[in-house]
This record gives sequence, structure tokens and C-alpha cells, in this order.
Amino acid sequence: MLKEMKTIIDGAILNYFQNLPDNRIHEAMAYSMNLGGKRLRPALALVMAKIYDEDPEEILPMALALEMIHTYSLIHDDLPAMDNDDLRRGKPTSHKVFGEALAILAGDALLNEAMNVLLETYAAKGPRGAAAALHISRSAGREGMILGQVMDLEHETRRASYEELMACHREKTGKLIAAAITAPAIYFGADPEETAKFQAFGLKLGLAFQIQDDILDKTATAEVLGKSIGKDEKSGKTTYVELFGIEKSKEMAREATLECLDILAGIPRDTQILADLAKTLMERSY
Amino acid sequence: MLKEMKTIIDGAILNYFQNLPDNRIHEAMAYSMNLGGKRLRPALALVMAKIYDEDPEEILPMALALEMIHTYSLIHDDLPAMDNDDLRRGKPTSHKVFGEALAILAGDALLNEAMNVLLETYAAKGPRGAAAALHISRSAGREGMILGQVMDLEHETRRASYEELMACHREKTGKLIAAAITAPAIYFGADPEETAKFQAFGLKLGLAFQIQDDILDKTATAEVLGKSIGKDEKSGKTTYVELFGIEKSKEMAREATLECLDILAGIPRDTQILADLAKTLMERSY
Repeated sequence: MLKEMKTIIDGAILNYFQNLPDNRIHEAMAYSMNLGGKRLRPALALVMAKIYDEDPEEILPMALALEMIHTYSLIHDDLPAMDNDDLRRGKPTSHKVFGEALAILAGDALLNEAMNVLLETYAAKGPRGAAAALHISRSAGREGMILGQVMDLEHETRRASYEELMACHREKTGKLIAAAITAPAIYFGADPEETAKFQAFGLKLGLAFQIQDDILDKTATAEVLGKSIGKDEKSGKTTYVELFGIEKSKEMAREATLECLDILAGIPRDTQILADLAKTLMERSY
Repeated sequence: MLKEMKTIIDGAILNYFQNLPDNRIHEAMAYSMNLGGKRLRPALALVMAKIYDEDPEEILPMALALEMIHTYSLIHDDLPAMDNDDLRRGKPTSHKVFGEALAILAGDALLNEAMNVLLETYAAKGPRGAAAALHISRSAGREGMILGQVMDLEHETRRASYEELMACHREKTGKLIAAAITAPAIYFGADPEETAKFQAFGLKLGLAFQIQDDILDKTATAEVLGKSIGKDEKSGKTTYVELFGIEKSKEMAREATLECLDILAGIPRDTQILADLAKTLMERSY
């Protein structure tokens, strides 16, 4: 199911950037967007259309905006001043191809373009669209993903506690993953109670996802993962695996996934598709 | 008048960031926002409230959002991979104080925060607010300011023609200055014809401003300017002064200012305050 979604999303992204005038900034934006990846955030947004029995086309621009935000964060994260990574999804990172200056601008432009899409397609449609767009924007910014990245930086110079690690990943990974679930729910008219449940599910899914990421960084090969492995250790970053070991981390990831399913069970809608997705993510090898 | 506006804006910015929780990302965002500067873009937005006989408080958040976008672009522009500047408004640049990684994130966070403000305060209020917010977002992105920055990068490696220099500055400087005038007009209900005239005025004002900037880079002292001087020459960037010399450039700036006044004369509103502002900018020494 995630694979089928990925095909739709990959096609929509290719199409979106092919339709832009041919210039260097569009080329750099398109390069990173077309590198592939799991497309988890846009897939979650599309799944929400199914759960609310709405046309997935309605949510496709929002799905693309979420992937633009995720991709910009990767471009900036890979910069020499940040993680200094040469490889992303098995291909050279943006600054390796376009130089640092254009990579910085391509990241900026993708964040900006996500906002263009959210403003044009959703905010202009009324209060629900505006609220959904604001929810994504806040989840990406100083109260969400960017805050998490700053925490992450701080953990490079000193060992983080378990609580600090949890807080860092909730902001850095959890908030945008949760927004991919909650923003469509808001747009489709979920009441505050239901929205809060989807938000809790999203944050827990983000946690399971992050623990699994730490495990794969330790156990997978670079070929399968498509990015440098063992980089957490090299960078001195605190990880779940470092704090608890592989076995205990696997148990924690399983537990977080079970808690995801519990939260879903409390939502009076057919959320089987989200439950399946949570289980699939648990079993991934990349 | 620009000075009076500056006092209001400086105070509003100080207040905005003082009210955020105390952490590293807010500290870095506040540092660059509080460095001062002419506050041209927010001042223009506030002036538009007077022209439409509306409460300037109505437009203050939009004014701050514009200054956040301008400030983020300066932080990223000053990075070692870009202009590599140590001095901004007479103080150390963001990456000199906080390191490159946090400077990149502070820039990202300011762009993101501008969008939070635009979404929360304007897009949520209905179609005019959403249209005004979208206009600003587009003017800042791949069809505006960022496109101009990419053109600017290209002109570091090869000499630009007059037409290319004009196009570069229209995007890099002109579009956001114009948006500071046009977006409030849209929000206050200007029809498309009036909006187009304000846009033309804004772009022309941006041109006059940029030529004047090139002249000051050549003639002013670093102390007065508060930033490194002669940097255009050092970086090998093409400037108006390099293409036409000081005297001809001064004449061009004066001419652009006169054209600004002409455009204003064709707008059936009392725009004296904008005319005065255009003339003040022409006579500035920093």
C-alpha cells in the first residue's frame, strides 16, 4: 500500500517540477525532490483522504507541500556546517551537485514553495484550509521540526538523557509526521477531540519510526539504506541504540507501534489502513 | 517619518521576540531581528495603512513578517558559502555569533515564522488576507527574492549585462519591497488596477533603492553603512556603478525616483506620504 502511494507521489512530484520554467533554482529543487525516499509524510496525508472518504486529489497539493518541507530540511541537514553528508538516497547530496550556496537557496525555496502551495490551495478556501495550513507551518518551525534540529545540534556536544532524546525526536521527526495526519483531518472537518487523537497517533508513529531509524543506522548496509550508515556514532549523536542497545530498542519500537494501534482503536472511524501502515513501517528494512 | 516608523517597528520586534520562550533558536532569531536597519519593508506596509485610512495595528503583524523574511535572507546571504560576511549593521553576523549550523536554522525559522504570522493573522481572516499572504510568499520565493539571489550567484562568475543586472535586482530586492506595498493594498481591498500600479511603484522604488545601495557601497564608510563596504568589487559582482560609473548611476537613481512619483500621481488616492518616502530614500547616506 505504501508502495502504491509512493508511485502516485513520485509521479505527482515529477510532474509538478517539470511544469516549472527551466532554471537553476528549479533544477536544484527538482533534483532533491526527485531523489525518491519512502514518501511517508505525503502517503499519510493521502491515507487520511481515504479515511474521511474524500478524493485523494483534494489532498495531493498538501501531500507535496509536506514532502517539500521534509526535503528542504534534509538539504539543509546534509550541509557541511550541519551533518556534512555526501550521500542521500544513494545519490550525491544537493551541495555536492550544485554547491553549497545553491543548496542553501534550494532548501529555502522548497520551504517557501510549500507555503505558496498551502496558501494558494488551502488557506484561500476558508477557515478549515487556513487552520490546516497553519498547523503544518507551526509543526515545521520554531515550535516543531526546527526546534528539534536545534536540540539535535546541542546533543552533538554533550550526551542527551533519555528524556531529552525523546523531546528532540518528538520535535524533529514527530511533529511533521503528525502534521501529515492531523492537517488533513482538520481540513476534512475533524472536531478538536478527534484531531487530538490523530495528533497523538502521529507523534507515537514518529517515535516508532525514529527508534527504527536508529536501529537501521546500526544494522543495515549503506546500499539498502541509500544513505551513509553508522553516522550517528561517528557524529557522536545520542541514539536509542546507544542508550539501550539493539534488543531493548527493538522492543521499544514494537511497544510504540502497539500504542499506535491502541490510539487508533479509540477513534470512531475505519482506520485499518493506518494500522496496517504502522505495522509495515515496523517491519521495514530501509 | 521613516525614523518614527522605525521606532514603532523596532519596539514591536523587540516585544515579539521577548514574548517567546527562552531557547537557542529564539535567541538566534531575535539577535538578527534586533540588529536594527532601516526597516524599509515594514515601514512601507505601515504607510499603506495610512493611505487606506486603516489602523496601522491591522498591518503590524504583516510588517513584522516582511522584516522576518528580509532578515532570514540576510542571515543566509552572509553565510560563508554565500557572501561570507562578518559584519551586518555594525555587529557580528549570525554565524559569527551562533555558528553556521544555528545561523542556517535561524534563517529557516524566520522564514517559517513569517508564514506562521501570515497564516494565523491574515489567511485565517478570509480571501483578501489569504491573497495578501500568498502575494508576499510568492514574492519571496522561486519567482521572486530567491530567484534573484540565484541570478546574483551566477553573476559572481561572469559579468552580467545591464538587462541581467536589472532582472536580478527586480527579483532580489524589488519583489519583496513591492510586496510590502502591494500586499497591504490587496488586504485593504484595492482592485486589480490599483494593485498593479502600486506593484509598479514598488518595483521602481526597489530599483532606485538598489542603485543607491551600489553607490553607497562605493562611496560611504563602513562605519556609516554598518556593513562591509567595497564588497561588491571584492566579490566580483556586477553593479550599476561598475557598469555606468558614479555620476551616471546617481542620475539613474534620480530618474527612477522621478518615475516613482509619476506612477503615484496616477493613483487616485492621497499618496503624498509614499512620495515623501521615495525622496527621503534618494537622499539617504546609509
